[in-house]
Amino acid sequence: MNRIAKLLKTKYPIVQGPMAGITLGEFASTVSEAGGLGVIASAGLSPEKLKEEIEKVKNRTDKPFAVNIPIYQPGSEKNLETALKADVGIIYTSAGSPEKYTERVKESGAKVIHKVSRLKEGLKAEKAGVDAVVAMGFEAGGIIGRSGVTSFCLIPELADNLSIPVVAAGGIADERGFAAALILGAEGVEIGTRLLATKECPVPESIKQAILKATCDSTMVIESPVVMRALKPELSGDSENPALGGQVSGLIKEILTVEEVIRKIAEGLNKAKF
Amino acid sequence: MNRIAKLLKTKYPIVQGPMAGITLGEFASTVSEAGGLGVIASAGLSPEKLKEEIEKVKNRTDKPFAVNIPIYQPGSEKNLETALKADVGIIYTSAGSPEKYTERVKESGAKVIHKVSRLKEGLKAEKAGVDAVVAMGFEAGGIIGRSGVTSFCLIPELADNLSIPVVAAGGIADERGFAAALILGAEGVEIGTRLLATKECPVPESIKQAILKATCDSTMVIESPVVMRALKPELSGDSENPALGGQVSGLIKEILTVEEVIRKIAEGLNKAKF
Repeated sequence: MNRIAKLLKTKYPIVQGPMAGITLGEFASTVSEAGGLGVIASAGLSPEKLKEEIEKVKNRTDKPFAVNIPIYQPGSEKNLETALKADVGIIYTSAGSPEKYTERVKESGAKVIHKVSRLKEGLKAEKAGVDAVVAMGFEAGGIIGRSGVTSFCLIPELADNLSIPVVAAGGIADERGFAAALILGAEGVEIGTRLLATKECPVPESIKQAILKATCDSTMVIESPVVMRALKPELSGDSENPALGGQVSGLIKEILTVEEVIRKIAEGLNKAKF
Repeated sequence: MNRIAKLLKTKYPIVQGPMAGITLGEFASTVSEAGGLGVIASAGLSPEKLKEEIEKVKNRTDKPFAVNIPIYQPGSEKNLETALKADVGIIYTSAGSPEKYTERVKESGAKVIHKVSRLKEGLKAEKAGVDAVVAMGFEAGGIIGRSGVTSFCLIPELADNLSIPVVAAGGIADERGFAAALILGAEGVEIGTRLLATKECPVPESIKQAILKATCDSTMVIESPVVMRALKPELSGDSENPALGGQVSGLIKEILTVEEVIRKIAEGLNKAKF
């Protein structure tokens, strides 16, 4: 068992990418039940609503799950307190300074992982005391930071320079990506876009179909106000609200269940060869 | 032996990235002698000068080598004819339509590989009849195309959709990158930036030192007129002529000989684990 599976206490070292408005209690519990780490996205939720979503997970599974706290979001402090009070074992911070909440989380006894997109942020997160970092490569969907560093370079750079374990995010949709990330030095992976194209995912069918049609160059980078990667509007059919998604969309060719996605990635690992 | 080593007839499926003004006859022959495919960059050379550089390689090694022809460059057609007349076995086209020269190269009996940065270009190159494609990820140094697709996504996308073999370029400096590229579906790799920081490389010492100091986010994308990745000027100390280099600079921590670089990457493969 590697350090990430041990830290998260999950069957597989696979973390579900938090997606605002999408990965709430129902979806997160499905991922946790499948052996990954389900993550409730707290962005946009009131503390009351977050509490409800946490209860939903607890009613559906006794497996570990996390709550994502995007630090820059208004209300993030109240949501953090809500999660800690509800005894959520893992807090996943992102989009802000790791120093802001790390001490508070650790003092409560919970674990904290933090998302970074360049070495400097990784070193800062380690110094702040986080238990693991998520390395967000430029190819990822959603908020990607400004560094532009890709998974191929960011994973080994963080693995070489940090003592805490690294989870790779961006570019991973199947067992090949999982194996490549581990070879480059990650001890776990985060799966985002691949989980959008699942039967259980509560996004409009048009977004799932857009992912199936996409090639890897069907995404674009937007700034509003943070830097994000989304599907090009000609694909998702909505230019006002572009659907967030990663370059890895081009590798996704069928809609599966969450359980099938997680199992294929985790158990296919042994088929990956060089 | 995989299809790329067979096609190139080299000891290892490792191609040296062509770098204008740097990888001429002397450097290319050193790479070929070390078991990789040395590549003379013809950009900026007159046909007479190119002929001289080809002779230099032939005088120094009997191993296979290639000439890179950036298609968009003025004079590329004359340089192509010079290379074919000198019986160079492998032509490496880039930066332009693969249709322009492929038929001519094939008709001469030489092999042709072509650099692409998105699926559409890969399909076009295969249709044009090239023997292999080089998948140039966004993290690579030098000319990178406009797609922005990273190695993590581009390699498997091309491998899944083409019948011809794929060589991965961008993000590879050690055996971990080599193994990850093979796992993602490549059959060979191209090494550029890692070969800049070698004892034999005829670039100013300041550029080699800049690479050693770099982190993976020490590069920037410039357009003039093609899209290129270069080291940030604060690193290379020259804001008028930025030194081209890839994100992988951040993983390069010592100056080695060309032979050491190639051997470490090729023979370290078996140490790579997941």
